[in-house]
Amino acid sequence: MATPRPSGSGKRPTITEVARRAGVSTGTVSRHLNGGHWVSPDSAKAIARAIRETGYVANSTARRLRTGRSGTVAFVIDEPPASFFEDPTFESLVIEVGQALAARDQSMVLLLAGDEDSAKRAENFLLTSGVDGAVTASAQPQHHLFERIQAAGIPLVNVGSPAGLEDRVAFVAADDREGARMMARHLLERGARRLAVIAGPAHTPGGSLRPEAFADAVRDAGRTGGAGGTGAADGPEGADGSVAEGAAARIVTVRHGDYSERSGEDCAAEILAEHPDVEAIFAANDRMARGAIAALRAAGRAVPEDVLVGGFDDSAGAVAEDPPLTTVRQDFRRIAVELVDALGKQIDGGVRANVVVPVQLVVRDSTSPARP
Amino acid sequence: MATPRPSGSGKRPTITEVARRAGVSTGTVSRHLNGGHWVSPDSAKAIARAIRETGYVANSTARRLRTGRSGTVAFVIDEPPASFFEDPTFESLVIEVGQALAARDQSMVLLLAGDEDSAKRAENFLLTSGVDGAVTASAQPQHHLFERIQAAGIPLVNVGSPAGLEDRVAFVAADDREGARMMARHLLERGARRLAVIAGPAHTPGGSLRPEAFADAVRDAGRTGGAGGTGAADGPEGADGSVAEGAAARIVTVRHGDYSERSGEDCAAEILAEHPDVEAIFAANDRMARGAIAALRAAGRAVPEDVLVGGFDDSAGAVAEDPPLTTVRQDFRRIAVELVDALGKQIDGGVRANVVVPVQLVVRDSTSPARP
Repeated sequence: MATPRPSGSGKRPTITEVARRAGVSTGTVSRHLNGGHWVSPDSAKAIARAIRETGYVANSTARRLRTGRSGTVAFVIDEPPASFFEDPTFESLVIEVGQALAARDQSMVLLLAGDEDSAKRAENFLLTSGVDGAVTASAQPQHHLFERIQAAGIPLVNVGSPAGLEDRVAFVAADDREGARMMARHLLERGARRLAVIAGPAHTPGGSLRPEAFADAVRDAGRTGGAGGTGAADGPEGADGSVAEGAAARIVTVRHGDYSERSGEDCAAEILAEHPDVEAIFAANDRMARGAIAALRAAGRAVPEDVLVGGFDDSAGAVAEDPPLTTVRQDFRRIAVELVDALGKQIDGGVRANVVVPVQLVVRDSTSPARP
Repeated sequence: MATPRPSGSGKRPTITEVARRAGVSTGTVSRHLNGGHWVSPDSAKAIARAIRETGYVANSTARRLRTGRSGTVAFVIDEPPASFFEDPTFESLVIEVGQALAARDQSMVLLLAGDEDSAKRAENFLLTSGVDGAVTASAQPQHHLFERIQAAGIPLVNVGSPAGLEDRVAFVAADDREGARMMARHLLERGARRLAVIAGPAHTPGGSLRPEAFADAVRDAGRTGGAGGTGAADGPEGADGSVAEGAAARIVTVRHGDYSERSGEDCAAEILAEHPDVEAIFAANDRMARGAIAALRAAGRAVPEDVLVGGFDDSAGAVAEDPPLTTVRQDFRRIAVELVDALGKQIDGGVRANVVVPVQLVVRDSTSPARP
């Protein structure tokens, strides 16, 4: 691109100058810059030409000093493109965050980080492009995404709890703990006593909050007696209908996958090899749950008759299959609206707030054995 | 975000000032701004702080005047997010364009347009963010994406032929015509004489170039006699082995889908209803071909035994299914490299060039009947 030529040496072009050249009012230029509502195609063309001729275009400082805003938010997802496209939760997030921003006439630009170099380039873009703020997801500690963005002075809200940085990085998250507790209580009520967990990577909520809260709930149920919860109608029957002899419920093992279906399959195969008597598996996302079901079947175990399986997310692709998956629903629309709202408050007034969005247990066939 | 405060009134902060405040050399600041290679974390932090304090950050003009580059290219895809995620060709393009840019240490920001308002917001972003250029895909005429970007003076290269605007908008495209001709010759050689086309939307290459070239090739074969090509070993047998009585090959109908699997299914059902004797269907992308196969099966027609089906793209998800799909492979890696190269030349010197990338016919089971 040819470098824009300022119209006078050392003099910063003003909106008035752009308006004069384009033969329109400054109000029209302003409307054009803020989304183009009520600007005719001819005026828009004339304004664009005037902006180009004066060099006003590249001088985002002037516009930002005037409006305080660029109207653009960067959604930085620290995943390589292949993982980004593979995981349906990103699709939900991108669609909902885009819509929530559009409702405020703000645009979203998407950056995929995913490695150290990409993270640096993302930082460079944030430093120079004048975006108003950033939404982050999947930040991997070794890429220092939070530090980079915060050091650049850019308002930032993360999707999900930023493991270990809850007091430094604003976030909007599903209620991971409560979701995991609901799943634990549900599996216990269904009679499972030997439970295994397939967790996500340690730096994500599915690698820490969800498995921890799940384990706590199982422990608590063990302490208060009747592991199935007080007075649960199902009583202490195993998932296969056998009586579990009042045994206390316990976590037999926790494995860590990477959220891919394949990793869920591998983890479940290991769990089965070491704990063939496992009665329920809680996977920290739906895709790993799906992989676990495949591994169980490959080993000749029926779901839910032999082993109960629960997931997390209620993501579109992962729940439609056979059997339909019991899971914890994240309300991505609400999360997106809260994200955009929290970011707006931080941009406007430097107010940093965390929001936890309620979740919902969705019971489907993967934990609902036909009972006599 | 707090508005950056210039350090002296009316004086534009310089890289020297940033370096002095950060206690590093201007070379280090420069390296930090250009990707951060060989900059220690401590220096990076100090520089980021100095940039913030001086207001240098928001003044992209200064940096652009110095380097002539922001290092960022916008990839603007004029599709609503749901279509974007549904179509595997976008995944291939985003991955490959991102990698081709990364190889030049440039970052890619992704914008989904998809409607008039989003297109305006994309234009506004391009006007104010100082990106070096734009790659566009799927531009829908009614959103005036090309006009908006060109009026803003931003270098632009489109993915695919921009229908009717080939002399005004630079593009890198697969060889749509040759791909369609290869498919036509292949289907004719396999003995098909009554061929139908499921085209894409009219403003896309699959809605114009591919069906036109396909029809031309079928017509040419008819004119030169032996529709199966000169001396083709298969001779004039129908796909089902019946002799087509030397009939000239012809296109029985052309339908327009929207590239979705569902539209391919609908078009094929209509084709079958009106032309039950159809022998081959060429769909302008793999997903519509997949839908066509579903419709044929629902109508009790075997593929390839009763009807041959060919697609276009060789996209990951669409070809793996049953039966494996004969298709025209687009080399998305090569397309991406050529895109980034063509855009770079336009940014550097205002040189506009179009590039056509060769395609390859990939023959699989959907056109390969087991022959006696």
